[in-house]
Amino acid sequence: MDNKSDLPSDCPLPIADASQVLLAHGGGGKLMHQLIETEFISALDNPLLGTRHDGAIISLGSHRIAFTTDSYVVRPLFFPGGDIGTLAVNGTVNDLAMCAARPRFLSLGLVLEEGFSMDSLRRITRSIQQASSSAGVQVVTGDTKVVERGKGDGVYINTAGIGMIETALNVGPRFIRPGDAILLSGDVGRHGIAVMAQREGLEFESHIQSDCAAVSGVVMRLIDAGIEVHCLRDLTRGGLASAMVEIAETAGLQINLVESCIPVHDEVHGACEMLGLDPLYVANEGRFAAFVAERDADRALSLMRAAPEGPGSAVIGKVTAETNGQVILKSRIGTERIIQLLSGEQLPRIC
Amino acid sequence: MDNKSDLPSDCPLPIADASQVLLAHGGGGKLMHQLIETEFISALDNPLLGTRHDGAIISLGSHRIAFTTDSYVVRPLFFPGGDIGTLAVNGTVNDLAMCAARPRFLSLGLVLEEGFSMDSLRRITRSIQQASSSAGVQVVTGDTKVVERGKGDGVYINTAGIGMIETALNVGPRFIRPGDAILLSGDVGRHGIAVMAQREGLEFESHIQSDCAAVSGVVMRLIDAGIEVHCLRDLTRGGLASAMVEIAETAGLQINLVESCIPVHDEVHGACEMLGLDPLYVANEGRFAAFVAERDADRALSLMRAAPEGPGSAVIGKVTAETNGQVILKSRIGTERIIQLLSGEQLPRIC
Repeated sequence: MDNKSDLPSDCPLPIADASQVLLAHGGGGKLMHQLIETEFISALDNPLLGTRHDGAIISLGSHRIAFTTDSYVVRPLFFPGGDIGTLAVNGTVNDLAMCAARPRFLSLGLVLEEGFSMDSLRRITRSIQQASSSAGVQVVTGDTKVVERGKGDGVYINTAGIGMIETALNVGPRFIRPGDAILLSGDVGRHGIAVMAQREGLEFESHIQSDCAAVSGVVMRLIDAGIEVHCLRDLTRGGLASAMVEIAETAGLQINLVESCIPVHDEVHGACEMLGLDPLYVANEGRFAAFVAERDADRALSLMRAAPEGPGSAVIGKVTAETNGQVILKSRIGTERIIQLLSGEQLPRIC
Repeated sequence: MDNKSDLPSDCPLPIADASQVLLAHGGGGKLMHQLIETEFISALDNPLLGTRHDGAIISLGSHRIAFTTDSYVVRPLFFPGGDIGTLAVNGTVNDLAMCAARPRFLSLGLVLEEGFSMDSLRRITRSIQQASSSAGVQVVTGDTKVVERGKGDGVYINTAGIGMIETALNVGPRFIRPGDAILLSGDVGRHGIAVMAQREGLEFESHIQSDCAAVSGVVMRLIDAGIEVHCLRDLTRGGLASAMVEIAETAGLQINLVESCIPVHDEVHGACEMLGLDPLYVANEGRFAAFVAERDADRALSLMRAAPEGPGSAVIGKVTAETNGQVILKSRIGTERIIQLLSGEQLPRIC
């Protein structure tokens, strides 16, 4: 938990040349936030973009819909537990679910590199079909571009998604409240480690599979059961730690986490130790955190554990009344530490 | 008009190796159609994707919305009359307009190459802001990824868009009827030639500017005036010719075009002659064709000519009662010729 893979916080950001885009600008950490805040949100200023949610909530007459987008540049394209196609569907489905929306429609934009294998393209298309079908969404519109050899990396995928919001709840970082319980839907760090292992050709004792999956089913169970959900967040780039920091900062409330309550698979632990990574910062693709009203915590936990996507769910912390916007982690040995954003990302191109 | 830049139609498709993606798969011609039909539409089979429209029409309760996506990989990023940012907004706005929808919301997905200039990124963001504001749309959600040097080409942009359909008209290739007049909103070929000239460092007598612009304003005028519009199509990859072939094939009706009625700027003509291109196949980014009921043709033409986007509008042909799905062009010297799809595209990475 000491950001061991990152620079110490008093070290200047690793910007050799601030006039250029760095890999870390895409990493889900400080530099990405800075880029988004200073270059995009200020230039494209509008109230919806400014909410820093996983998607935009749009009112259309009497309906509310969620609208979201993600580009997928994961390397390698195929990894234990999924591929870029699975990811492109589940990632966007999950972003919609994090808006408390029922995912319905996806767009699909492919940027193919000249020379890319048609067989691989077919495998990816099949994964997209299977993942869509399993998540109950339809790919309704698409676009294909081809770029020259050496100007891409096989295939990059963008999906945008539309979901229907069927609850009157307002769900988002601004809506968390002191006393809220923080529930996590399962063990963390698997996706990042599975991709990293595949990329680097590392062999662990047994194969760590990505957790890549749609979590919309369990989210809809919470909503349908009337759980008072205040915020939902999937734990992708930057992992659990970065998500918690963003939410605490946006809400201006202190979040307390208990390390011993956060499930991490033994093999993920081992791999992280070997690679010098902190599992709390490693990306997940089928895990989310739910902030729910204190009185609903037990019921929410039971619902999550009973769902196919959440047998390993746990309460990992709570929102306090302190207004410092910090995340405090109580370690296994009882010490407390402030959790911070990394500058970049531990693992580039993880999603 | 003799497809001079393409292979003769009895020549086998230029597939050295059918197991790989070719540049021509992204070109808006036969190979792209084949890829989309055999790999995507069949695998992701659903009724909305199968309509082959510029976007999907989705019913949400009493509302109908249009949903569309496009990735932009134009090279160079900056060209006379616009840049990749202008294009990414106007292209998707126009796809929504082609569904007779009022464009409202955009998503923005950026894939940046490590080392890309921050100044260029700022220029592009400014263009996105200006084009959105001018087209009356809001960028409400976004995503940024960074890939390593040599795995991209500066920046690729995806935008997806949502528009509101406020008319009861059904607009699309399947809805054209014998007798329909075909109106074109201005001269063709400028975008492709402007990009090509910039890319190749060609100097023409004066500078040809891209026609890149949002056409939603003039489309809404037609709709609001109650013109019986049957089909709308923007003339991007593959140009006017490919759009007409697609529509004729989908409707199973013959389209007759009159070459002398199709406006082409003299300098575009000259450049096309020099480069061995056919202006009818060259991409446009601010031009569309409208198929309207015969009795509304004059009124539609007046409305289009009075709009800022359409002073050069013209009636260029009509839909016949023949059911062969062909496009026949009557040349300036009175001969008739069947227009076909090119195999690939004359100009790769034009949008």
